[in-house]
Amino acid sequence: MGFSLRELADLCGARLEGDGERIVRGPATLDRAGADEVSFLANPRYAGLMASTRAAGVVVAEDAVVERRDLALLRAEDPNRCFTRVVAAFAAQRPVPEPGVRAGAHVDPGARLGADVSIGPGAVVERDADVGDGAVLLPGSYVGVGASIGAGSTLGAGAALLDGVTVGARCTIHAGAVVGADGFGFEPTREGWVKIPQCGTVVVEDDVEIGANTTIDRARFGATRIGRGTKIDNLVHVAHNVEIGADSVVAAQAGIAGSARIDERVVIGGQVGVAGHVRIASGVRLAGQSGAYGDITEPGDYLDTPARPRREALRRMASAGRAEELAKRVRELERRLERLEGDGR
Amino acid sequence: MGFSLRELADLCGARLEGDGERIVRGPATLDRAGADEVSFLANPRYAGLMASTRAAGVVVAEDAVVERRDLALLRAEDPNRCFTRVVAAFAAQRPVPEPGVRAGAHVDPGARLGADVSIGPGAVVERDADVGDGAVLLPGSYVGVGASIGAGSTLGAGAALLDGVTVGARCTIHAGAVVGADGFGFEPTREGWVKIPQCGTVVVEDDVEIGANTTIDRARFGATRIGRGTKIDNLVHVAHNVEIGADSVVAAQAGIAGSARIDERVVIGGQVGVAGHVRIASGVRLAGQSGAYGDITEPGDYLDTPARPRREALRRMASAGRAEELAKRVRELERRLERLEGDGR
Amino acid sequence: MGFSLRELADLCGARLEGDGERIVRGPATLDRAGADEVSFLANPRYAGLMASTRAAGVVVAEDAVVERRDLALLRAEDPNRCFTRVVAAFAAQRPVPEPGVRAGAHVDPGARLGADVSIGPGAVVERDADVGDGAVLLPGSYVGVGASIGAGSTLGAGAALLDGVTVGARCTIHAGAVVGADGFGFEPTREGWVKIPQCGTVVVEDDVEIGANTTIDRARFGATRIGRGTKIDNLVHVAHNVEIGADSVVAAQAGIAGSARIDERVVIGGQVGVAGHVRIASGVRLAGQSGAYGDITEPGDYLDTPARPRREALRRMASAGRAEELAKRVRELERRLERLEGDGR
Repeated sequence: MGFSLRELADLCGARLEGDGERIVRGPATLDRAGADEVSFLANPRYAGLMASTRAAGVVVAEDAVVERRDLALLRAEDPNRCFTRVVAAFAAQRPVPEPGVRAGAHVDPGARLGADVSIGPGAVVERDADVGDGAVLLPGSYVGVGASIGAGSTLGAGAALLDGVTVGARCTIHAGAVVGADGFGFEPTREGWVKIPQCGTVVVEDDVEIGANTTIDRARFGATRIGRGTKIDNLVHVAHNVEIGADSVVAAQAGIAGSARIDERVVIGGQVGVAGHVRIASGVRLAGQSGAYGDITEPGDYLDTPARPRREALRRMASAGRAEELAKRVRELERRLERLEGDGR
Repeated sequence: MGFSLRELADLCGARLEGDGERIVRGPATLDRAGADEVSFLANPRYAGLMASTRAAGVVVAEDAVVERRDLALLRAEDPNRCFTRVVAAFAAQRPVPEPGVRAGAHVDPGARLGADVSIGPGAVVERDADVGDGAVLLPGSYVGVGASIGAGSTLGAGAALLDGVTVGARCTIHAGAVVGADGFGFEPTREGWVKIPQCGTVVVEDDVEIGANTTIDRARFGATRIGRGTKIDNLVHVAHNVEIGADSVVAAQAGIAGSARIDERVVIGGQVGVAGHVRIASGVRLAGQSGAYGDITEPGDYLDTPARPRREALRRMASAGRAEELAKRVRELERRLERLEGDGR
Repeated sequence: MGFSLRELADLCGARLEGDGERIVRGPATLDRAGADEVSFLANPRYAGLMASTRAAGVVVAEDAVVERRDLALLRAEDPNRCFTRVVAAFAAQRPVPEPGVRAGAHVDPGARLGADVSIGPGAVVERDADVGDGAVLLPGSYVGVGASIGAGSTLGAGAALLDGVTVGARCTIHAGAVVGADGFGFEPTREGWVKIPQCGTVVVEDDVEIGANTTIDRARFGATRIGRGTKIDNLVHVAHNVEIGADSVVAAQAGIAGSARIDERVVIGGQVGVAGHVRIASGVRLAGQSGAYGDITEPGDYLDTPARPRREALRRMASAGRAEELAKRVRELERRLERLEGDGR
């Protein structure tokens, strides 16, 4: 649970100056670092903090001038990139469950388990479910009847893949996420709302990440689909029959209504709403809290509710604040005009 | 796990043309259907897809002209309604847990279980809890001390009914929903926020659906109440002492603050916010992302923040974009007026 | 499960008039109370309800004039404060799990349990985890490897503290909350989004409340921090490296993006969005649905998207609606000016 500064220097190809034997327990910013932490200086703006930092060692540029003798330095061409490797090394020390079905896990005899899967206590795998090689099911997670999760994927604590849902390889489904609840569809009748049967499924392709407590509903029929490499943050709602293309990003608390189609490499900001049946073209970026109520066919930045191209939206916002000033000028014009009209009589 | 086309035709009263022995595994749209799927053509706009669809059979209108011989047809007066029955038939094939208390379930000896209940592994039923006939508690769900769930209701994976909460008959509480957490009430004091005790409960009437990861808080005292037949989507927040009437609909990620009263047959769009103590009259429809900050007493469509009647809101939005054009006209007026005033001197 | 009216009168120092032996089962408003409930009259506006209330007893002011003989009265100087004590007495009757590790709980032998902890069935405590004296872990909750929860804290049903996360003393983490999921960070590359390792943690200080299904992500490195006494409602998203000071309040469905710093005693309304890296000063109150996209350095009320000081925002909103009226006046000016210009020729 820690590295010597020498190990870290070797790991990211930095040149070590000073005491390489000191053990550090984690990375930190210069102002926050304690005596058992390693920090970095990439932006010259923070150079002043070098005098006071309590870090054991600091990743700095090749040519950085540092006057303190008590500070070990890890000199690198690109301190940012070097420090990212340092962070990755510590991240790799986070505990990983060992393979095996632990006591307290409930695996139906009719489920298929790949090699080296890890299933925690309280996790449930139902009949006809399929768990790929090396998949990790954390405690309390659920793989429903006929659902599958691919090789190397992780299902977080309490996360649920409901019946028939498919998750690809190398996916991370964070704690509490629910994949495959019924789509929200009801028909109005005289006796009240009658449920529209939801017999479809959800297909999550490879390399997808789905955030904590996010919900992705199953299709009415066919599949709600999350494309390869797409990353979804926490508390996002993806409704039935939505299709999201590859390599898109959906930030926290965004909501995508039924049958919307999000193309590839779309970026959806936090708390954004996308209306039902709307299509969002590849390369569109929707700013936080905006609302897309119609198709967006051109790539670019959009904001506001309803969402407009960024320039138009900013002009409109500026304009909205001008009415007050305009009112003054109109009042002045009216006064002057009245005077002129009086003169003319 | 499948139906012959003949079975489906019989089931929805359609007249079969072509090979009724083919087995189909699910419904699909014309463009997405595979050779083991059944599709439908209701909107003439999609008639062109009939030439290329790979479906085994298609539900069509009585008088539809179809030239392909390889395609089985299910002719019906109302193809939409017929296809809904087909979808329902497949939906009914989704796995239903068998009655019984499975190994790994924890049922307190002081709980009351009705006939034919199904309780999955990891589900917990506490003392004095009451589970109605035929209720289904999926794995990892929780019924707290003295809580009850009515006959024929389903509690999704990991969903929680906390102590004393009451859920009626034929309700569906989806995975991860939390019913009965403390209302959010704190009193400011010199020593910081002091918790206001929340000793009330939640009453969910019959035929209610509550979405995945939705939260419904218990009342400070008395009850937070969800009326009969009301449908609530995913990730919705219903605060303490809210009352929602019968047959209302609340879309995903909407939030209803403390003590708000929503009448019957209200429709609340996605990501809507309703402020505390506000009253929303029967027949009101709040568009997505709008915010109701005062009482709404007349039925009809409302949008914007703060929410206004639809026509007024649209006029206002149009108006907000006009200031720029007005500014130009005012500038022009000022110029012309100056010239006139100069002439007069 | 109930109190005599005499017990309640003693408990809140009220003077009893009438039958003190009647047992009441809970508090209620005057109009809702049943014959086994106790109510209160603090606001003279509701005095009319005294004639019809079915309550067994009512907390009233010292000098209140009440004509009904069948109603027991609890006379108090401050009926509000007295009734709050009554409510608290009933709230204290809510079931509290008894100390002990119940059957079906999974506690790793390498975990440290304090005295008198209560661990429900299906709860999982991993190795190196630390559970403080008197802490309560409800069924299905999860304490990850090396995570800790302080003395007297409660972890709700299905709530998860992931590996290494620290929760202080006397905290309440409600059902379904997830503390310590990975921060949402990805680097764009030619091969798609590459995950930025998240090796930090979450530190929740003492006396914090975290709502149901809320998510608080771990830091990239260092810690996401929730200050002492801060209260967070349901379905809130707190991103990686956010820091919230002491005694702040965050209402339901608000979202705080990465590295934002919220100072002490900030009040964040429901569905508010705070952008990444933004700083919100002590004493700021952000109204519901507003969006803070830049630093806010002065205390006070803010609303709108982007958030502005309350007065400015209200003026702006009023102004936005005026363009239509201005357009009329400009048209009129144009007509009159044209006439004048014609005259001059």
